Amino acid sequence: MTAFSKIENFQVRTNQAFLDKAAALEPVLNKRVIRPGRMVRVEENFYHEAVVEEDAPMSELPGMRLGKGDKVIFDFGDHQVGYVSFVAVPMGSHYDAPAYLRLKFAEVPSELLEDAKDYDGWLSKSWIQEETLHLDILPASVNMPRRYAFRYMQVEVLDTSPKYTLQFRNICCDYVSAVEMNTVEPLHSRDDLLNRMDRVSLKTLMDCMQSVFEDGVKRDRRLWLGDLRLQARANYETFRDFNMVKRCLYLFAGMTFADGRIGACFFHEPDFRVDDTYLMDYALFFAPALCDYYEQSKDRETLEELYPQAMEQIDICWDTMLDERHVVVDKGEEFWCFLDWGEGLNKQAGAQAVLIYTMRYAIRMAQSLCDQKRVRQMEERMQILKAAAIEQFWDEKQKMFVSGEMRQISWATQVWMILARVFDKEKSRELILHTMQVNPRIRMVTPYMYHHYMDALIRCGEEELALEEMKRYWGEMILDGADTFWELYNPYNKHESPYGSSMVNSYCHAWSCTPTYLLRKFYKKNEKFRELFE
Amino acid sequence: MTAFSKIENFQVRTNQAFLDKAAALEPVLNKRVIRPGRMVRVEENFYHEAVVEEDAPMSELPGMRLGKGDKVIFDFGDHQVGYVSFVAVPMGSHYDAPAYLRLKFAEVPSELLEDAKDYDGWLSKSWIQEETLHLDILPASVNMPRRYAFRYMQVEVLDTSPKYTLQFRNICCDYVSAVEMNTVEPLHSRDDLLNRMDRVSLKTLMDCMQSVFEDGVKRDRRLWLGDLRLQARANYETFRDFNMVKRCLYLFAGMTFADGRIGACFFHEPDFRVDDTYLMDYALFFAPALCDYYEQSKDRETLEELYPQAMEQIDICWDTMLDERHVVVDKGEEFWCFLDWGEGLNKQAGAQAVLIYTMRYAIRMAQSLCDQKRVRQMEERMQILKAAAIEQFWDEKQKMFVSGEMRQISWATQVWMILARVFDKEKSRELILHTMQVNPRIRMVTPYMYHHYMDALIRCGEEELALEEMKRYWGEMILDGADTFWELYNPYNKHESPYGSSMVNSYCHAWSCTPTYLLRKFYKKNEKFRELFE
Repeated sequence: MTAFSKIENFQVRTNQAFLDKAAALEPVLNKRVIRPGRMVRVEENFYHEAVVEEDAPMSELPGMRLGKGDKVIFDFGDHQVGYVSFVAVPMGSHYDAPAYLRLKFAEVPSELLEDAKDYDGWLSKSWIQEETLHLDILPASVNMPRRYAFRYMQVEVLDTSPKYTLQFRNICCDYVSAVEMNTVEPLHSRDDLLNRMDRVSLKTLMDCMQSVFEDGVKRDRRLWLGDLRLQARANYETFRDFNMVKRCLYLFAGMTFADGRIGACFFHEPDFRVDDTYLMDYALFFAPALCDYYEQSKDRETLEELYPQAMEQIDICWDTMLDERHVVVDKGEEFWCFLDWGEGLNKQAGAQAVLIYTMRYAIRMAQSLCDQKRVRQMEERMQILKAAAIEQFWDEKQKMFVSGEMRQISWATQVWMILARVFDKEKSRELILHTMQVNPRIRMVTPYMYHHYMDALIRCGEEELALEEMKRYWGEMILDGADTFWELYNPYNKHESPYGSSMVNSYCHAWSCTPTYLLRKFYKKNEKFRELFE
Repeated sequence: MTAFSKIENFQVRTNQAFLDKAAALEPVLNKRVIRPGRMVRVEENFYHEAVVEEDAPMSELPGMRLGKGDKVIFDFGDHQVGYVSFVAVPMGSHYDAPAYLRLKFAEVPSELLEDAKDYDGWLSKSWIQEETLHLDILPASVNMPRRYAFRYMQVEVLDTSPKYTLQFRNICCDYVSAVEMNTVEPLHSRDDLLNRMDRVSLKTLMDCMQSVFEDGVKRDRRLWLGDLRLQARANYETFRDFNMVKRCLYLFAGMTFADGRIGACFFHEPDFRVDDTYLMDYALFFAPALCDYYEQSKDRETLEELYPQAMEQIDICWDTMLDERHVVVDKGEEFWCFLDWGEGLNKQAGAQAVLIYTMRYAIRMAQSLCDQKRVRQMEERMQILKAAAIEQFWDEKQKMFVSGEMRQISWATQVWMILARVFDKEKSRELILHTMQVNPRIRMVTPYMYHHYMDALIRCGEEELALEEMKRYWGEMILDGADTFWELYNPYNKHESPYGSSMVNSYCHAWSCTPTYLLRKFYKKNEKFRELFE
């Protein structure tokens, strides 16, 4: 799979005033010094799973001497994002050769069992968090210049010399985030798994709130619009850092494709720069993201400034992505619409559904701004698109939506048609229950897609079912050892990676942080679930 | 072979005033910016030799785009010691992953054909000049913090991402040395090989003149007494940097073993520290090194201050290293006396010879200081030791000196007995000619030992022969591609390494720089060789 876009001579449109606003909103990161709590061993068990066992308490570190081939794994107790430092002190005769170390940083223990030499995925191996370094002058106070995302730090002495060994001291991590955990009230449910899901969600979100909403702190480390929308929703229920959402919205609006299309992803280092990747669903999500932001913050100025561009995204799709039947043109294997990772998912019907879904938010914004012309226009278009969706994609015999020329039935298509409200609530409910029964082979792979599945179940009034599914999915991730929620989790294939190797999978990925949003928004405040929250 | 010494709870004796003097003499290094002259390919020919071919002129660099797996080798034209910097610029789409590079620095092209993974020698693999680095922010202006010794710099792009490649700019090296080449008049011989030998000697010495006289700039990077003595001699005929010799003498004298023995080697980073290695011959060389320094610089104050310690080294050997017959006790396989690398060389007779040799310089110093008591004492002892040497080691039947219980015949033993002047000039001449004819199987391996062989030939009046041998040895090293003279060169086994792998061999090693000393001291000023120098 080579799911990426690359445009020669990519031209952009810049709104410098918007970029300046975004720049002014750059957060000052909070720092906290974290020290490892213990030293551990990581081994593979009979089922090829990584097993962590305590090797020694930290109190034994001063007595340890590491020579050629020795290694030690420091367990920082929880997922960390930050800058690592340590001191290496030579013991024995005066050091007569540099010390040569290999450091590995792992979000999950299995990463320590993988050998970077074997990596053959299609994402850059530069994401693998491994360094070799020479220390010419000892004792050495080492401040690693790169930011790492990790819980485990493995230090391997590749060589010293026969004349000396190393003692390690002051291992620590300067943890960084734009927000602080103590600003959020814990969940307090009688069901402790829900509390844990909430806590892990919060940690995931917090770790990813850096200079922007990053999608993953190990890999990618940049702003994706689809991820931003979910991060912002979780943020409204928790940290309520409106400035970060605002900054990110202004970034996307401040530099777009030359034809006005908003990019799927945005770089903020070394300068602001939109990526040359357009994803139809991601660009459309600018509208719901802006609508959410306005409704939560009441920041009317931002709404007024960015509303035209939100509407423009919908207009562009209306004008350029539909055929004469008002059906989204299928671009097949191209990287044109995301929806979900997962082998072979056809995006056509899902893209149609996202366009319809987006229009609902466009209408809400138009109403807020008393733009009646736009309200009417969007309502008309929405009806046309819904009718076309049913006409083109609904398979009355199978009672499910199909997608693409091969009439593929996938979970994603059903979920997005429900969220688009192509059917009423009752018929949507029948559809989702039927889908669960059929369990189409083209399944959901990412927590991002699972979030929309939860959203669809809740929309259909199936909150209990959604809660069960949420526990089965995110809860099982916790039972599988997640300190933060992972980019990918396929309970049917736990080693799945869309990148050709799990070595570059990201294990603290913001799009997976939504249980805190769902629990706090749809359950905690819901009379039906009062018992769960005392 | 594990030729090293390691002492538990090593105790030292410090003379802070001496160390302070040494510290005050720290040189300010000269810097010069060197840029590569071309890009090259290095391949192995049928004879497993590394062959360098021009790949592209530097003018093509701006047009080159390097992606995953691409590499380029920059040829800096000559051996360099210094700090490398370059700029890496991403080309294509905005970089969406860090750049991941491997840099290799090679003094000789064959190093680029070796894989560090295969290294299994007993010296630390930390000496192999190879780095991997991640560039998170691009364009990146990279200043490598370590000092490298190299002519070739290989940059290998381990990965970028499918969305971008790298362009490299401003590759350069800040060359450092305590001295400058333009302060030395070139040799000007009619025999150009001599000119080249002189030039390569000078470059070797210059490269190794850093904060101290380093022995090797790739590996070791510290002060060894045996090397210092030869470097200083070459320095007197060329750069005439007396302060550096003085600094090094005060270092050795400023911190010794607690019992007064001068260490074989000295560390100057991060603080001054004598190594816990005692080599009988090296400690003894403090006397000739001091004597040379005084005779060249006329710095009487230093002679007066350091003379007691020079004499002490001889006294210690006289008192502790001899048996009742006044013969040095053989310590066999221990690392107790250097003489030369090379498998199986027995050191007993050579150590006896070095002790005798050293006394000649002790007497010269004692005479300079009008210390008649010492003059007499040393003369008496020298006679006793010479007699013992002949009695114990001379094999009248074989007409050669033997060493050790197994009565080993080696080149080193004959050479040192000649330099010790155990026989008169004529008998010494017979011995060296006989040795050349016999060509004992225990040969000389290092240029350090070869220097003493040249010295012995010259001592015997065989200057022409010495010149031939010098050209055969150092000259052949040049024909084999030496830009600076190597630590090791065995014409009978060019891949020999005493360290279990040639990967850590040093190819700019100060003890090999003596042709400039020999040529300028014994030939250029010698009427017999006037023709050679116009």
